Amino acid sequence: MNSYQTLQEACYEANMPLQALGLVIYTFGNVSAVDRNAGVFAIKPSGVPYELLRPEDMVILDFDNNIIQGSKRPSSDTKTHALLYKTWDEIGGIAHTHATYSVAWAQAQRDIPILGTTHADHLTTDIPCARPMEDQLIEGNYEHNTGIQILDCFQERDLSYKEVEMVLIGSHGPFTWGKDAAKAVYNSKVLEAVAQMAFLTLQINPDAPRLKDALIRKHHERKHGKNAYYGQ
Amino acid sequence: MNSYQTLQEACYEANMPLQALGLVIYTFGNVSAVDRNAGVFAIKPSGVPYELLRPEDMVILDFDNNIIQGSKRPSSDTKTHALLYKTWDEIGGIAHTHATYSVAWAQAQRDIPILGTTHADHLTTDIPCARPMEDQLIEGNYEHNTGIQILDCFQERDLSYKEVEMVLIGSHGPFTWGKDAAKAVYNSKVLEAVAQMAFLTLQINPDAPRLKDALIRKHHERKHGKNAYYGQ
Amino acid sequence: MNSYQTLQEACYEANMPLQALGLVIYTFGNVSAVDRNAGVFAIKPSGVPYELLRPEDMVILDFDNNIIQGSKRPSSDTKTHALLYKTWDEIGGIAHTHATYSVAWAQAQRDIPILGTTHADHLTTDIPCARPMEDQLIEGNYEHNTGIQILDCFQERDLSYKEVEMVLIGSHGPFTWGKDAAKAVYNSKVLEAVAQMAFLTLQINPDAPRLKDALIRKHHERKHGKNAYYGQ
Amino acid sequence: MNSYQTLQEACYEANMPLQALGLVIYTFGNVSAVDRNAGVFAIKPSGVPYELLRPEDMVILDFDNNIIQGSKRPSSDTKTHALLYKTWDEIGGIAHTHATYSVAWAQAQRDIPILGTTHADHLTTDIPCARPMEDQLIEGNYEHNTGIQILDCFQERDLSYKEVEMVLIGSHGPFTWGKDAAKAVYNSKVLEAVAQMAFLTLQINPDAPRLKDALIRKHHERKHGKNAYYGQ
Repeated sequence: MNSYQTLQEACYEANMPLQALGLVIYTFGNVSAVDRNAGVFAIKPSGVPYELLRPEDMVILDFDNNIIQGSKRPSSDTKTHALLYKTWDEIGGIAHTHATYSVAWAQAQRDIPILGTTHADHLTTDIPCARPMEDQLIEGNYEHNTGIQILDCFQERDLSYKEVEMVLIGSHGPFTWGKDAAKAVYNSKVLEAVAQMAFLTLQINPDAPRLKDALIRKHHERKHGKNAYYGQ
Repeated sequence: MNSYQTLQEACYEANMPLQALGLVIYTFGNVSAVDRNAGVFAIKPSGVPYELLRPEDMVILDFDNNIIQGSKRPSSDTKTHALLYKTWDEIGGIAHTHATYSVAWAQAQRDIPILGTTHADHLTTDIPCARPMEDQLIEGNYEHNTGIQILDCFQERDLSYKEVEMVLIGSHGPFTWGKDAAKAVYNSKVLEAVAQMAFLTLQINPDAPRLKDALIRKHHERKHGKNAYYGQ
Repeated sequence: MNSYQTLQEACYEANMPLQALGLVIYTFGNVSAVDRNAGVFAIKPSGVPYELLRPEDMVILDFDNNIIQGSKRPSSDTKTHALLYKTWDEIGGIAHTHATYSVAWAQAQRDIPILGTTHADHLTTDIPCARPMEDQLIEGNYEHNTGIQILDCFQERDLSYKEVEMVLIGSHGPFTWGKDAAKAVYNSKVLEAVAQMAFLTLQINPDAPRLKDALIRKHHERKHGKNAYYGQ
Repeated sequence: MNSYQTLQEACYEANMPLQALGLVIYTFGNVSAVDRNAGVFAIKPSGVPYELLRPEDMVILDFDNNIIQGSKRPSSDTKTHALLYKTWDEIGGIAHTHATYSVAWAQAQRDIPILGTTHADHLTTDIPCARPMEDQLIEGNYEHNTGIQILDCFQERDLSYKEVEMVLIGSHGPFTWGKDAAKAVYNSKVLEAVAQMAFLTLQINPDAPRLKDALIRKHHERKHGKNAYYGQ
């Protein structure tokens, strides 16, 4: 009997739609799902084509990157996932993609400004772009340090990972998370949509104003406030 | 027996193609259909994935937002629909989406200029972008006030809702309407196409001229005039 | 027995892929096919959704716009097709779409410059954009005059309709033609691809040079010259 | 018995996905596969629609362009393929497309700068754009000279074809290669994705910095170094 079967299936189910959602080509991208009680997470194996993936291929690791179960090599971004799970107690899933518009903003090394209610329905700040890593950290434990880079970015900007479930790594691409792996993937898709809208908005009007504070508050409250009623 | 079955089915049939038309992701978007004799409208429930929607899930409300039938919560934009039905006697359906190019123009807070005959085949003015709401109204009955915002925009600009079946809400996105729910969705798709064409046109030639008056009149007359013959 | 069945089927077969090719939404677009011996052409009826079209719905007209067979109204652009068939002896099919990038260049009122070999594999000049019509002509026999507008454009620029099988109507959109209706549709798709490539090229490098003459001649000769050998 | 059946099938299998990958329309594009032991390669025939292609249609040639087997005309780009196989001992497949963003950069006559890790995961230099050919070479053995053009570009810039598996031909489009035909097609898709990301990045921030050297080295090493572990 495989005690991680449910976790593996959740991870598998979250990874499989990435191509149909237009978020990845080939094997670009990886999603993980955590089991807090067991202190482990499941992640896509490295370099296996999506059409060949099976639930039992999902690799099980603890938060210190020890492989608990699985014969395949875990995604090369595994250490980033591990550190985020270890540090942020309340996330249940993480997604990483190379989605086009998200990567473009990351490569431009620009935060995505909050320009409309589509953005505000999901978070009330600009989407942060963490600045590229120091050379010393790149040459060290790179993927672990990508996790550090994300944590530092949130600390410096005083952001809550519960409020802001997405980040761009400068020169690299997006990481998103959420209460479970499916929500993390949802956030990757939302980020990509918001990234495209922001790109087009600034092409049409380079001086497009940020969303006014009252609208930011309203859209946040109606979705996340104590009397939340949002849902289209 | 369900006396609203026909109305629910019309509403359901109009909502379902939104994803295939490329106008929404996830549950972003809602369409309603009205029954003028019964004084009620049907609208998509809030936050239900399209693939799980059933005709009987469509919520029935009167124009004062009282739920007449339905166990699900109606779309969070319901009050905007209700006010438009109450005020504009001759519309039969309303659609709201977060379609990419339409939202981009809304976030840019720019009217979409009439630049060609694709636009003129559908309306003879620029597509209006209502300016963002006053803070006081945002903090009040927000979705109802979004309806007010649309009505005010049309009044200030002396536009007829029968001639101009679409509007952009600044910083938010598009609302469209028509003689029935299917036509409202059709107008959302046309708006998105026109929004993309106008974006590209101005990228190619920032000084692209507005469509000349004679062409505006001609395209309007051949479609809507007393000797209308248009249809591609 | 229907003596136009073959012609209707060719016309039907050419119209049907327009949506899948990404060239039209709804009923935006029309393709016709000619029978030179019979002196008639078949064209899509006006305003009928593609999914409901049947071969026998194609309307048969002579080159003076008299309906020879068919109970449906022919496309509103029929007179443009008729004049081109009447004037240009050797074309076998005509297509008209509102494809996005083609329309954008038409609305920008810019010829599409020849910037690469994809373009040169199909024609050796810029893709002409006919300037918008004089008011007097718009108010007259508009669709017939659209044909005049195309003919005038080719005459003024000394272009051969056999060499250049496409044109943009300023503020409107593209017309393409060819030896048969299928080739006309092919040219619409090629035009759309070339229009997108040219748009992107000039966004990347506003000073991108025109294709050098030697390459224009080479690509033309290898495809159309007496020792033609082109085909990818 | 057909001694080239395996080679033809590999070539066929590599050509067929080009349309679904969004890299070609109609017959724009061609892929070849080499058999080093036999000293021959298989290439798509010229101008045959993909839906009609059969494995046995793949034409077999030697590296001097002599047809060894096949009744159809080989792709018009065959001589370019032949020269690359003849000169570069270790490539197993070559792909040529007219993919949109790749062509746009080629027409812009710009190298694609290395702006992020998506790019660095595949190569550590800018993607070279070979300058358009001298007139004399165009008028000569054009497709052979396109091969010369590629070889000269790599020599002048001191690039290794094993490290850089892609090139843009100025005013024309991309050629890619790899250990086999499937890898060559993979590289065409990666190039197109990187080309789109770079385009968007520079639209968002015209001063977007090149990827820093430490990140270039790291991403290269983790994928190609002696302790390679990359795979998403």
